[in-house]
Amino acid sequence: MIRIGIYGFGNLGKAAQWAISQTDDLVLSAVFTRRNPSEIVLADPSVPVLPSSSVREWKGKLDLLLVCGGSAKDLPEMTPALAKDFCVVDSFDTHANIPIHFAHVNESAIQGGTLALISCGWDPGLFSLMRVLGESILLEGRTHTFWGKGVSQGHSDAIRRIPGVLDAKQYTVPCEDVLCAVRKGESPSLPAEAMHKRECFVVLAPDADPQRVQEEIVTMPHYFAGYDTTVHFISQEEFDRDHREIPHGGTVIRTGCSGLDSGYCSTMEFHLALDSNPAFTSAVLVAYARAVYRMYQRGRRGCISILDIAPADLSPRSKEELLAQL
Amino acid sequence: MIRIGIYGFGNLGKAAQWAISQTDDLVLSAVFTRRNPSEIVLADPSVPVLPSSSVREWKGKLDLLLVCGGSAKDLPEMTPALAKDFCVVDSFDTHANIPIHFAHVNESAIQGGTLALISCGWDPGLFSLMRVLGESILLEGRTHTFWGKGVSQGHSDAIRRIPGVLDAKQYTVPCEDVLCAVRKGESPSLPAEAMHKRECFVVLAPDADPQRVQEEIVTMPHYFAGYDTTVHFISQEEFDRDHREIPHGGTVIRTGCSGLDSGYCSTMEFHLALDSNPAFTSAVLVAYARAVYRMYQRGRRGCISILDIAPADLSPRSKEELLAQL
Repeated sequence: MIRIGIYGFGNLGKAAQWAISQTDDLVLSAVFTRRNPSEIVLADPSVPVLPSSSVREWKGKLDLLLVCGGSAKDLPEMTPALAKDFCVVDSFDTHANIPIHFAHVNESAIQGGTLALISCGWDPGLFSLMRVLGESILLEGRTHTFWGKGVSQGHSDAIRRIPGVLDAKQYTVPCEDVLCAVRKGESPSLPAEAMHKRECFVVLAPDADPQRVQEEIVTMPHYFAGYDTTVHFISQEEFDRDHREIPHGGTVIRTGCSGLDSGYCSTMEFHLALDSNPAFTSAVLVAYARAVYRMYQRGRRGCISILDIAPADLSPRSKEELLAQL
Repeated sequence: MIRIGIYGFGNLGKAAQWAISQTDDLVLSAVFTRRNPSEIVLADPSVPVLPSSSVREWKGKLDLLLVCGGSAKDLPEMTPALAKDFCVVDSFDTHANIPIHFAHVNESAIQGGTLALISCGWDPGLFSLMRVLGESILLEGRTHTFWGKGVSQGHSDAIRRIPGVLDAKQYTVPCEDVLCAVRKGESPSLPAEAMHKRECFVVLAPDADPQRVQEEIVTMPHYFAGYDTTVHFISQEEFDRDHREIPHGGTVIRTGCSGLDSGYCSTMEFHLALDSNPAFTSAVLVAYARAVYRMYQRGRRGCISILDIAPADLSPRSKEELLAQL
């Protein structure tokens, strides 16, 4: 059994315990948290919940740590620090900072003789894999990525910071007409704001002015300005009933031409529709944790990305079983 | 430059010359054929066309051979024989015989100190990759594969063998209602004939009886019996105008549940729509040839499948470029 620790117990860490429990070859050995461990209730109460400061005492007792912190502040510190003592998998998703994060984690992992996988999940992650697959096969072509329909935590947070807002959720929705055009092989060169709409569900404080809040949302630079944004004001009751979950998804489409005179077009499309972003993301982390463990056993050290991992290493099945069902 | 030879110059071999010409790092060095070499005209007339019997004289002058023969009779002989002297990639697609073909090719490649990739293409190939990815991430779930809309060469050949048929093309078409049900997360347990329809375009000899030919088609065991089959009799002129090409495609859908009480459903869908099956398949072979060359350079020997190949090895880009665009 591959002994897994979960480091950080937010939405992703919580979901990871369920993803581990679905496997036959991984076992949850410990959870580490910055909160009061006694406040955390696990699905399996026999698993110890410990303060994050005690993690180093577990060196040698865990095969791999899932580092389930935030990309903005937690992971840039946590993953390099933990990679000195543990094989780790994180879901660092600040695209622009991936190379520097990779360099830091690689240095620690080489120093500590461990193997670290960063930026695992679906974007970056499976979508990165699909983009590379598409661009490597259809060399002349265009790649489009659509996100949604799904909840953007960052945009929901941004709305909640507006005075007078009690609660809010923002759904990113791909523009159906652009999606159809891309599927048909048209390759519009559009910015993200022309490919997506933003739909907001907002609970107001009793004395808040809906006009002002609506104006503050739709004009918010970097988040909503330039987007087709719809704001729905709803009651707390409706919010709690219909907007509790964190669904997400998206689509990567590669279109390209090959053959005689580049005369034949091909479309490769990968689509995800997820009831729960953390439930799916944690399932991705767990499959890739299996691969990292196997590659570590074979002697691989340092930092890697999802692009360095062969699909066979993800599967609980043997190579013979996989070959028989190719 | 990676020096490529094409062994076998049917539809796939022909298409491979164009796929190679789209790359900046592969070069077509020679074509080997069982036909009369003087009858073959290449896009680049400076590339030598040689009798297949002379291939061994090229040992050491090629980095890799694309073995473009048929799965029924050619590849079971060709690939093991060629793997003794060359790194090879083939597209062996008789699913049930993959393990035995793998064993034969592996023995030759180990003996010859080469690296061989078998069963590359889209099914088996990219679809195998997607099935393993889906089944490794969503451990509890169902996988459905739909083929088409596209030309089945085997079914077209079967119709052409009926007396009175001058020419024929058979399109496999997924049943739209089943596809929609699977996308919605329903998991019908259906045989292939309930998931697909068969549409046939047939040119008859002047004296042939359409009733009899139609009856022979729709009742043909293993090929059409049990399927919803439509037969259209058309003129040779219409056939040549509308049914010259070999389009294909298909869809792999994995649906599964994870998270608390397996209460969250996820759908992973991979879809291909191809104007030309050989143009796309040869582009897949060429991308994987790049990976095989790199893995051979790093010391890998023996037989592998597409599941043993990390995505980064497919790309003409450097690891640094890939990481920056993850």
